[in-house]
Amino acid sequence: MSEKGILAVVSGFSGAGKGTLMKALLKKYEERYALSISATTRQPREGEVHGREYFFLTQEEFQQMIREDALIEHACYVKNYYGTPKQYVFDQMAAGKDVILEIEIQGALKVKEKFPDTLLLFVTPPSAKELEARLVGRGTETEDVIRDRLARAAEEAEYMDQYDYILVNDVLDDCVEQMHQLIQDQHQRVSENGAFISAMKQELKELVSSV
Amino acid sequence: MSEKGILAVVSGFSGAGKGTLMKALLKKYEERYALSISATTRQPREGEVHGREYFFLTQEEFQQMIREDALIEHACYVKNYYGTPKQYVFDQMAAGKDVILEIEIQGALKVKEKFPDTLLLFVTPPSAKELEARLVGRGTETEDVIRDRLARAAEEAEYMDQYDYILVNDVLDDCVEQMHQLIQDQHQRVSENGAFISAMKQELKELVSSV
Repeated sequence: MSEKGILAVVSGFSGAGKGTLMKALLKKYEERYALSISATTRQPREGEVHGREYFFLTQEEFQQMIREDALIEHACYVKNYYGTPKQYVFDQMAAGKDVILEIEIQGALKVKEKFPDTLLLFVTPPSAKELEARLVGRGTETEDVIRDRLARAAEEAEYMDQYDYILVNDVLDDCVEQMHQLIQDQHQRVSENGAFISAMKQELKELVSSV
Repeated sequence: MSEKGILAVVSGFSGAGKGTLMKALLKKYEERYALSISATTRQPREGEVHGREYFFLTQEEFQQMIREDALIEHACYVKNYYGTPKQYVFDQMAAGKDVILEIEIQGALKVKEKFPDTLLLFVTPPSAKELEARLVGRGTETEDVIRDRLARAAEEAEYMDQYDYILVNDVLDDCVEQMHQLIQDQHQRVSENGAFISAMKQELKELVSSV
């Protein structure tokens, strides 16, 4: 089926385990996927490497990318810009890799609007109670932070309906497999197989006129 | 995820191996699927059993089902009516079985129009040449019949774009697995998980107001 890569956007509640899920998926199917790296104007934190966690850009460089339409989507949070550089994503897709963007909801919906074939996946724990338990369980967050995260999750939940698929992250390995299957199945979408369908139509016409 | 069954419609070229594919799928995952049985006014052929191949109805009985809106779709070919009784399909879906309808293209598109969550699968051989080879290889068809089948396939190919997924039937076992995966994936569709999403929204609101 289609040899061009799929674009998949993954969002989900903070505490749903997106990060762990991505790492496990990329480890298990390294040759299949490419993880998109975002650009940002925020300062690197300790241990963060340019070109690995983010492309760290100046305001000027970022503005230039916006002007040149070189970003799939971008947004501003707490005075810093974040965005997804087009070039890398399109190069990887052209090379047949399925590209995963881990971005928040507003960005995800913008990508879908621009590129309707994008697969939108929403990662969630099996229940709200479980989300709370995971946030509390980390032991690193204050009560205030937990309350903020839950409040944000409640807001984000309002957008779940606009995604394509729900990924319940209960048992990690199962969730990795489900995510892999969901993305791989997209290669069979009619919209991904225009060339195959055109060839089939053409060949059938030729056969009919030749017999 | 969703416990209600999925409705999947399978169409495809004559000679694509739909029948064999269905049998293999139902044999392998017997507990998961129910195959919808069509109603028809045509005469039973030798060996066909009422309630197995078809529900064989009189014109009057069929007309009554139409009047009572008891059919998901129906059509008339060569003076005989064919249709899909609602009751069986809905009962099986309510019981959590994924229901498969094997019907031709016009019927498939009508079902999708009425029930947009229906999954439309189009079964095709890997190429037109292969389709011809399979039709010839049966050894049971005259040249005229083969020409008619190819002409019909050429017409049907025009509707492939309106399906959701293409299933290339090359190696049967692989195709069975792909079909199974595609249908099972649908249980994770946002549209199939309204109850889960509503519960998540509600629980998160309660948690936020309680902490």
